[in-house]
Amino acid sequence: MSYKIGLSDLERDGGTSLTRQLVERFAAAIDSGALAPGEKLPTTRALAAEAGINHLTAARVYRRLAELGYVTASVGRGTFVRSAPPAAAAEEGDEWQSYVLPERPMSYLESVVADAFRLPREPGMLSLSTGWPSPRTYPTPELARIAAEVFEEEGGEAISYLTAEGLFGLREQLARWGGDCGFATDPDEIIVTSGARQAIDLCARAVLEPGDVVAVESPTFVGFLSSLRATGARLIGLPVDDQGLDTDALERLLARHEVKLLVLQSACQNPTGTDLSPQRRRRVAELAQERNFFVLEDRVYAALRYEGEGVPPLRALAPSHVIYVNSLSKTVGGGLRVGWLAARGPVRDRLAMLKLETDFHTTTLAQHIAARFLAAGGHERQLRRSIGFYRERRDALLEALERHLAGEYRARVPRGGHHVWVRLERPLDERALYREAARRGVTFTPGGIVTVERHAQTHFRLSFPLLDPEELDEAVRRLARAIREVRRQDRHAATMPLS
Amino acid sequence: MSYKIGLSDLERDGGTSLTRQLVERFAAAIDSGALAPGEKLPTTRALAAEAGINHLTAARVYRRLAELGYVTASVGRGTFVRSAPPAAAAEEGDEWQSYVLPERPMSYLESVVADAFRLPREPGMLSLSTGWPSPRTYPTPELARIAAEVFEEEGGEAISYLTAEGLFGLREQLARWGGDCGFATDPDEIIVTSGARQAIDLCARAVLEPGDVVAVESPTFVGFLSSLRATGARLIGLPVDDQGLDTDALERLLARHEVKLLVLQSACQNPTGTDLSPQRRRRVAELAQERNFFVLEDRVYAALRYEGEGVPPLRALAPSHVIYVNSLSKTVGGGLRVGWLAARGPVRDRLAMLKLETDFHTTTLAQHIAARFLAAGGHERQLRRSIGFYRERRDALLEALERHLAGEYRARVPRGGHHVWVRLERPLDERALYREAARRGVTFTPGGIVTVERHAQTHFRLSFPLLDPEELDEAVRRLARAIREVRRQDRHAATMPLS
Repeated sequence: MSYKIGLSDLERDGGTSLTRQLVERFAAAIDSGALAPGEKLPTTRALAAEAGINHLTAARVYRRLAELGYVTASVGRGTFVRSAPPAAAAEEGDEWQSYVLPERPMSYLESVVADAFRLPREPGMLSLSTGWPSPRTYPTPELARIAAEVFEEEGGEAISYLTAEGLFGLREQLARWGGDCGFATDPDEIIVTSGARQAIDLCARAVLEPGDVVAVESPTFVGFLSSLRATGARLIGLPVDDQGLDTDALERLLARHEVKLLVLQSACQNPTGTDLSPQRRRRVAELAQERNFFVLEDRVYAALRYEGEGVPPLRALAPSHVIYVNSLSKTVGGGLRVGWLAARGPVRDRLAMLKLETDFHTTTLAQHIAARFLAAGGHERQLRRSIGFYRERRDALLEALERHLAGEYRARVPRGGHHVWVRLERPLDERALYREAARRGVTFTPGGIVTVERHAQTHFRLSFPLLDPEELDEAVRRLARAIREVRRQDRHAATMPLS
Repeated sequence: MSYKIGLSDLERDGGTSLTRQLVERFAAAIDSGALAPGEKLPTTRALAAEAGINHLTAARVYRRLAELGYVTASVGRGTFVRSAPPAAAAEEGDEWQSYVLPERPMSYLESVVADAFRLPREPGMLSLSTGWPSPRTYPTPELARIAAEVFEEEGGEAISYLTAEGLFGLREQLARWGGDCGFATDPDEIIVTSGARQAIDLCARAVLEPGDVVAVESPTFVGFLSSLRATGARLIGLPVDDQGLDTDALERLLARHEVKLLVLQSACQNPTGTDLSPQRRRRVAELAQERNFFVLEDRVYAALRYEGEGVPPLRALAPSHVIYVNSLSKTVGGGLRVGWLAARGPVRDRLAMLKLETDFHTTTLAQHIAARFLAAGGHERQLRRSIGFYRERRDALLEALERHLAGEYRARVPRGGHHVWVRLERPLDERALYREAARRGVTFTPGGIVTVERHAQTHFRLSFPLLDPEELDEAVRRLARAIREVRRQDRHAATMPLS
């Protein structure tokens, strides 16, 4: 054999497995004709001895070659190079998939969302597109200590299966928190989810059917739009002003449509940073009870408040109608993937069953860590420690806008959260701006992907948590230059429609 | 105040929050009339002083009472007991939800699956219904050490957001494993999921539309049936014999229907424990390529083999057509929720986008732990350590069946996995048996929930990993008595249909 296949120089440092190296060498020898069709290969024992590998590895090499169609084995006779050309599994084309899969072109929204997870990691890119907590605020040492405690005290329970609703100890902590601020009164109301993102997706799937009407704040969190649209429901946008969701618009909508679900953020709304006023909050609860629709209340930024009184959850007023959603992703760390929802009645049972049928339950270890972190008061400490950090960045972003775009934009000072919602005084082609900005090393969230309806005006969302004040200044400087470049390129661009 | 509401005996040990205790006392006083409508409450400062709490807590108590409708606050005047009866949010009924939610009665399948997660934890219950790894085999100390390493070496990365596809280091480990045994060749093919359960659900949602035809092994894993049915697809069952999926039946089905997806387990099939023969494996790959349908290949039990040669993944033969799914849940620990899929082409991109829109990505910490566990050879060590444990239990279960039900049943010796598939020689009412067995302290998986079509015969799945040999004997003894009791109760029960 050794005259046809070199076996002396196998890499044994573990970079590539021995099996794989040998398979590749045999395959290359057969492809090149060095090993001819019909030729008999050495026994596995002989191969093992010659290559200095164990017998099981040698057998695995031949098995893999057989799978790939290079050799055939015949009991009692041995292993032979196949006469037919290999089935060439690797050469199988993928075009057929497009004919078979449901029609669903990658949307503008999807491509921008995928960018939001990819671009911030590119070197030199300044991201104004992501509302993540800053890694510099992570309570990593505390979580490390708690994780060690969990393994020490819980043993195998740390990696055991749970019921779909999640770890009872965590649900107790959340219900206690909920009792204090009004989002829940009993652990039975709580279902732990993989982030608020999953809670939103489960809620959309549990409540909506194709053709149902959903009212949603516009602008809003992009994840609402994708999960709601995936159900086949009809989305209708409602404006948000400095008192939060416009309840008069909601009433006009209710006069015309039977609304199945209303989706809102009652505090530190993403992206406007506004709060729902006490009067409107009561009105939403009354309307939900009068007209019997569900409300999905997302509170992921509610605790990140820089000014103003806290807004109590809507769910305190209408616990049967409101499905409350929150997480630790914006305050502690998004990679934990610990979120929850609070609901009661038949919809709670549907949500629990759907969670079970989606992924059984959320990672046990992360739930134990979160329960102990909350019980030890870690979340409040974390908020106290990080609020100043984010407020400083919010202010730096607002200053940078004044410095580089004075007179060209309008923006409201967000009371909380990670975003500033900006409107340009003169419209331009939003997609061209997005591309030009990325070329200049800055990303943002185009208004078109977080609004339900098309706008003649140009909006965008700028998120500040991941950049330092100087970086925020540089990012806005790049953005301002991109805006001027796009205006220069197309003097006629005025009201390009989004699609 | 103190003559109306006792404030001296507040619990300060943290069992119930002070806010909650005070809210409850005020509410009770208002409900009982001790505090009359229109009565003015002390200022928050006075309350704080009298109750020995801080001012913010006192303010929170009044805010919460206002939310609940017990009091109204009027700027400059103070806080008053409301004259109108409280809006009684808590008394809001839930009946309206049933009129609004999509019609979807809790199915027999769903109730049995929910039991499978609940019943094993009840005292005295012997569970033959769950295919979980035994906590006694968990590599807890090794995982604890790795978790500490992750925090030490990765810092904040341990809880950071990732791209939807998952941690690249884990995908590299999986691709290396995949290269050795044939399920993948490149990290780009791998998407990390929250268990194989989520991979299955994503696959069903990405590939299927209402009315599509899906061919599925019958009996099979119950999770397939719920995820596939939820898409509105039409399910058609194919028999499984001692060579695995019946490919002749598949060909007959293909002659009549355009199949969009075939779902199977190619090794240690759940629940029959059989392998797909080499000849049938090739035939399935050829048919998929000729007719262009997707194959969902689930391998969660493939590594838990007690006898026979390993079966290479089907995906090695048709990588564009096969979506491969696996996890660490049956071998390491189900609570980790680390699974993955391997796919390529447009369907891979759809799956990644759907993962992003479902829950962003799987918990970062668990992915780091899994990557290091695999890199250190932990998975192979874990298999070597636990195979004997499970084989002993399989054999004990088979012996117990012979001891307590000789002549009354048929069962195939499973080559791997956690289950024995049993057929009773004489049919009986499966649901009555399920109830009677639970009453006697033993649970099992009724055949009706893991088969697509109704059967005249009575089957059930018995799972052995969680019980010791003596417990397995006792569990089968209880089951045998339940069988006799059901036969006694209804001499006429013969071919009760399942629904």
